[in-house]
Amino acid sequence: MILTGPEIVREREEGRLVLEPFDKEHIQPNSYNLTLGPTLALYTGGVLDTREENPHTTVDIPEDGYVLQPDRIYLGSSLEVLGSAHHVPIIRSRSGAARLGLFLHVTADLIDIGSIGQSTFQMHAVQPVRVHAGDRLAQVTFWRVQGEITLYDGKYQGSRGPQPSQIHRDVTQAAR
Amino acid sequence: MILTGPEIVREREEGRLVLEPFDKEHIQPNSYNLTLGPTLALYTGGVLDTREENPHTTVDIPEDGYVLQPDRIYLGSSLEVLGSAHHVPIIRSRSGAARLGLFLHVTADLIDIGSIGQSTFQMHAVQPVRVHAGDRLAQVTFWRVQGEITLYDGKYQGSRGPQPSQIHRDVTQAAR
Amino acid sequence: MILTGPEIVREREEGRLVLEPFDKEHIQPNSYNLTLGPTLALYTGGVLDTREENPHTTVDIPEDGYVLQPDRIYLGSSLEVLGSAHHVPIIRSRSGAARLGLFLHVTADLIDIGSIGQSTFQMHAVQPVRVHAGDRLAQVTFWRVQGEITLYDGKYQGSRGPQPSQIHRDVTQAAR
Repeated sequence: MILTGPEIVREREEGRLVLEPFDKEHIQPNSYNLTLGPTLALYTGGVLDTREENPHTTVDIPEDGYVLQPDRIYLGSSLEVLGSAHHVPIIRSRSGAARLGLFLHVTADLIDIGSIGQSTFQMHAVQPVRVHAGDRLAQVTFWRVQGEITLYDGKYQGSRGPQPSQIHRDVTQAAR
Repeated sequence: MILTGPEIVREREEGRLVLEPFDKEHIQPNSYNLTLGPTLALYTGGVLDTREENPHTTVDIPEDGYVLQPDRIYLGSSLEVLGSAHHVPIIRSRSGAARLGLFLHVTADLIDIGSIGQSTFQMHAVQPVRVHAGDRLAQVTFWRVQGEITLYDGKYQGSRGPQPSQIHRDVTQAAR
Repeated sequence: MILTGPEIVREREEGRLVLEPFDKEHIQPNSYNLTLGPTLALYTGGVLDTREENPHTTVDIPEDGYVLQPDRIYLGSSLEVLGSAHHVPIIRSRSGAARLGLFLHVTADLIDIGSIGQSTFQMHAVQPVRVHAGDRLAQVTFWRVQGEITLYDGKYQGSRGPQPSQIHRDVTQAAR
């Protein structure tokens, strides 16, 4: 079951989910709108690799916005800190952003139960799109669970700002 | 919880969800197939902008189909009018379309509860793909909600045909 | 409702879902990690068509990996056989893969209830990415259903390895 907007508000008031800062204008019938934070991360190398650390740099979005180019993956993040130890958050685009050809994730939309932080957006533009810090580009939904809960205790816990991939650590850890 | 195919049929018969026209051949184990309508919308400008109105044009899909090019976002729509005041619809590709590299949405797949209309598809082709009006490219699932329901009353209500982004109205409204 | 990690384990032990081979290291708070199998499929023609059979070839991923190029759709598959006659599986990227700009599906992420097999990944890279057989790129979640269950009995049942699109058979079947 997906929580309705009023239920998201109620569960937040009871301390069962985190959405900070909270603005009641962001409440939707079944979701809560998320805002683009001020920083983007980009990889600087040529071919990326799932088994190597991939160097990256960060850029601050200028006052008049930043044009995302189609041939690159950009990592952004929500201004909001969000998460829940009771429900599973799932991220998606708002339709207004998606109708401009702007992907907000690259099929990793689920946030583990117990993971609290600023959410990393995996941003990809089909055509060049100018975005602005503070744009309400994304939304988060919350889903009820069935079964015993084991809280997330992984490598992205407590994230602030966009977090590059750590998938190469799968190999490093396996090699230990 | 996601409604099974037979439950979608039952809920529709009880007037708790809309799927028109309805064809029982479209029922799947957990979803209902949606058909591509006859019109596509494309943006005509260069760089798109989340804070500007982005000019667009529409094209009718010819009898022998229309080739979607990889460097563009196309907005299509379902032939079917759909929605529900009780369940949350979520749109996705059928696997046959996706296995040709055809995205049917750009991560905005959730339809607000209470929104009834033809659904706008956010279409993006990884390689050139010829599509045809009447192709069964998409499917809709329906999800149960938890909590008090506030029905959608937004800018895309009652949509017919593909609807371009209205995200720039966020700024206009905030500036009032 | 989405099953928690411990509930996925419990349901598997009761024979209500299939995940083979099973490795408890793959259990996540709300999902189970899936591994990339050794073979990829690619289309060999120019313009793909929803109403034609689209020729394809397969490649084996070399020992030192295979670089996915941005202008192509690749079909991969899970090493794991998975499915359920009781719950609906949904596939997505792990965040580590997505943060490299690697799509694991092209908006067809839902597996019909009753469909058991190796899952076909619809892979698309925003920038060139080297992948390796055995990479844990994806994850599967399981969702409770509401309503009477009709098991999947379609054209991709019992899949082994990546399965190209069969959407052109829609037309052939309608023409019968």
